[in-house]
Amino acid sequence: MKIAVIGGVAAGTSAAAKARRTDPDAEIVIFEKGTEISYGGCGLPYYISGLIPDRDQLIAFTGEEFEDKYGVEVRLKHEVREIDSHEKMIYYKNLATGQDGAYQYDKLIIATGASPIKPPFEGFEKENIFVLRSVKDGDRIKAAANRDTTKKAVIIGAGLIGLEMAEAFTEMGLKTTVIELQPQVLPPFSQEMAKLVEKELQEKDVDLVLNDGVAAFKGGDKLEKVVTESGKEIEADLALLSIGVKANSELAKKAGIEIGETGAIKINEKMETNLKDIYAAGDCAESKDLITGKAAWIPLGSTANKQGRTAGENAAGGSYSHSGIIKTGITKIFDLTAARTGLSKEEAEKNGFEVTEVKIKARNHAGYYPGADIINIKGVFANNDGRLLGAEVIGGDGSDKRIDVLVTAIQAEMTAADLFQLDLAYAPPYSSAKDAVAILGMVAEKKL
Amino acid sequence: MKIAVIGGVAAGTSAAAKARRTDPDAEIVIFEKGTEISYGGCGLPYYISGLIPDRDQLIAFTGEEFEDKYGVEVRLKHEVREIDSHEKMIYYKNLATGQDGAYQYDKLIIATGASPIKPPFEGFEKENIFVLRSVKDGDRIKAAANRDTTKKAVIIGAGLIGLEMAEAFTEMGLKTTVIELQPQVLPPFSQEMAKLVEKELQEKDVDLVLNDGVAAFKGGDKLEKVVTESGKEIEADLALLSIGVKANSELAKKAGIEIGETGAIKINEKMETNLKDIYAAGDCAESKDLITGKAAWIPLGSTANKQGRTAGENAAGGSYSHSGIIKTGITKIFDLTAARTGLSKEEAEKNGFEVTEVKIKARNHAGYYPGADIINIKGVFANNDGRLLGAEVIGGDGSDKRIDVLVTAIQAEMTAADLFQLDLAYAPPYSSAKDAVAILGMVAEKKL
Repeated sequence: MKIAVIGGVAAGTSAAAKARRTDPDAEIVIFEKGTEISYGGCGLPYYISGLIPDRDQLIAFTGEEFEDKYGVEVRLKHEVREIDSHEKMIYYKNLATGQDGAYQYDKLIIATGASPIKPPFEGFEKENIFVLRSVKDGDRIKAAANRDTTKKAVIIGAGLIGLEMAEAFTEMGLKTTVIELQPQVLPPFSQEMAKLVEKELQEKDVDLVLNDGVAAFKGGDKLEKVVTESGKEIEADLALLSIGVKANSELAKKAGIEIGETGAIKINEKMETNLKDIYAAGDCAESKDLITGKAAWIPLGSTANKQGRTAGENAAGGSYSHSGIIKTGITKIFDLTAARTGLSKEEAEKNGFEVTEVKIKARNHAGYYPGADIINIKGVFANNDGRLLGAEVIGGDGSDKRIDVLVTAIQAEMTAADLFQLDLAYAPPYSSAKDAVAILGMVAEKKL
Repeated sequence: MKIAVIGGVAAGTSAAAKARRTDPDAEIVIFEKGTEISYGGCGLPYYISGLIPDRDQLIAFTGEEFEDKYGVEVRLKHEVREIDSHEKMIYYKNLATGQDGAYQYDKLIIATGASPIKPPFEGFEKENIFVLRSVKDGDRIKAAANRDTTKKAVIIGAGLIGLEMAEAFTEMGLKTTVIELQPQVLPPFSQEMAKLVEKELQEKDVDLVLNDGVAAFKGGDKLEKVVTESGKEIEADLALLSIGVKANSELAKKAGIEIGETGAIKINEKMETNLKDIYAAGDCAESKDLITGKAAWIPLGSTANKQGRTAGENAAGGSYSHSGIIKTGITKIFDLTAARTGLSKEEAEKNGFEVTEVKIKARNHAGYYPGADIINIKGVFANNDGRLLGAEVIGGDGSDKRIDVLVTAIQAEMTAADLFQLDLAYAPPYSSAKDAVAILGMVAEKKL
């Protein structure tokens, strides 16, 4: 049995490791076009800011370490250029030597990831304009941000990476401005809840330019300012473009593999594509929204891990499923945690639910215990049966706990009444006798 | 409508407040034999240690404040001595004036709480031997522990309160010994997991005497040492007896109200006792184990709150239920969190389940992010369908999150496979790409 894996970050390495455990005898080869595998891309903002001091900490395994630990061959700087699903061949170029090569597989796992979206902005070729995806991107941004002459940073896009980098640059002493096309930061959140994040950013001296986009990057060889569509000119020694990513699905598409409406590779719960013996996993692949049953694409390390593990197991002859996601996301923004899951009111209504939104504010733990902080929760409940369909949690410590309880409740199809009945763990350092989740349930029951 | 509430701590005040919201016109009277209502008893160890500097912080409302806020009459120092369910009368003594009185109710809520168990130990009358239940108990212990001559403390009983007080005394500079009759601390935990707590206590210089009980308290007027059944003599300037509590159910029993096997008042999901128009709630009342369906009695502020709210709603003419508990508990022991929920292996087997225990160790969040710590989880899974029946979590920050996710999963009757499918929130400060709960599910699936 020969298993080829294209891509060696989260999904690819999870797939290879799991395939090895499932089939100790298989030949398993990872083809990775870069020089790093298995790195924690989500940790890059903290590496850039210096909170994570050592670059190596981000890299779970070097290629060699992975080979040693799992008995998997790792071919770095190997770019796969073509898949022939009839002959079960992949054709690659060794970017180090320039030589072409081919590999015959029995099973193929595509884990090609995603890439930052880079529209053809005027002046985008200037120095000090970056995207953040790889460890090398992180190295470059860190070096530029730490230069003595770098005082001002502009971030384009107020999504998770944009805001995490706003914190990083601010911690590094750069005056930071975030430009966002939408009228709010964190577009997947409701506007009302996003305002709490905007307040936190402003308190931490981050400038926000909402409802505006980039028209051009100006300057000489080096960036000097960012000009917005509304005509604002923002001085900038450095700019980060973080307006989103797109699935790396071209290779698959060229091979006749079906691509979904999201632009990512269509797969079923077994991670199988439409072509026999070809699996896809991670940021290049779709998932299913467990509430609506529709295709969803939310590229995240946690999903990549689960999908990779599932693809690896199945490619090696096992049988495993990943049923889908509910689009959970979380981010730390200075002293706030912002998290969401499930459907927003608008999404729910678009999918035929009549819903009620319920917003509460509660303490993270007993008010008398030091460190008490406020947690804001918004829940979206179905009017007919009180079922919880979605939630947003923004607040201090313990916000991550509440979102994970609500994630579990949503996947269990719990109702407002069920939330009140949860026997959640109570002691003063951890919660209040009435936990925030119970309060949400109580208020929702009354309102429904 | 006249609603009488006997007892004014967690359940009593929750009941009265909820009854007021449900019926704005009812006459509601709380009879409390002490001088404080609505205090956070669970916060007492932290008040004693000084972590909570101000006594008033523990008291959510004084009697007057509660009267003003809720329009509920609060009669402090009123001890109810008899309930006549036929005449719907309660008879009380005003402990301040010595006068007797009576009150006619339409609905009665019994929330008389629980009291520390005090066996007739030899020498128990000596000075500096305490139990901890009321704010006044807290005041007395705090004063004694802060005395210059107090250097050594002995705690009898290694349950939640005993260990929280071991931390408090140690933080106050007292050399502290904990004596426990069982061969382990925290008897509801498995011995294997309790060892982690024992290690933490020993590292923090708390002495443990397991498998041993108190024979006598020795000294003159003042306590000088505690003699154990095995003959150990432990010097002590102060002793705290925390071997458990018993429900204050005598008043109810005398009135013909049915008492369950646990010794607490038998109630249904509406908090109704066997006698018409009489409800019970909080530490004096039973609950139902949601997994076994059997009566369970785990006196806790969170359950008291829910039961009180339910009793108040129903007494005031509404309709609400509290379905039961799964015996969740949590405590902070120095730098560790120890939490449990659901059935232990032994309990599960006693109730006819064939089970498999699964133990894992995982990081609380991404290893490269500062503050990464270890979380140990033990899950008890049913062999036939993989259903999660119980869990213990002991570890660093984020242990409380995992227990609450597992609580929710147990109440939703989730299986090992379901745990892996949870779309829990992932970002480096909050979790690993493979969350501890997902790892538990994966390992359990493999083992089952």
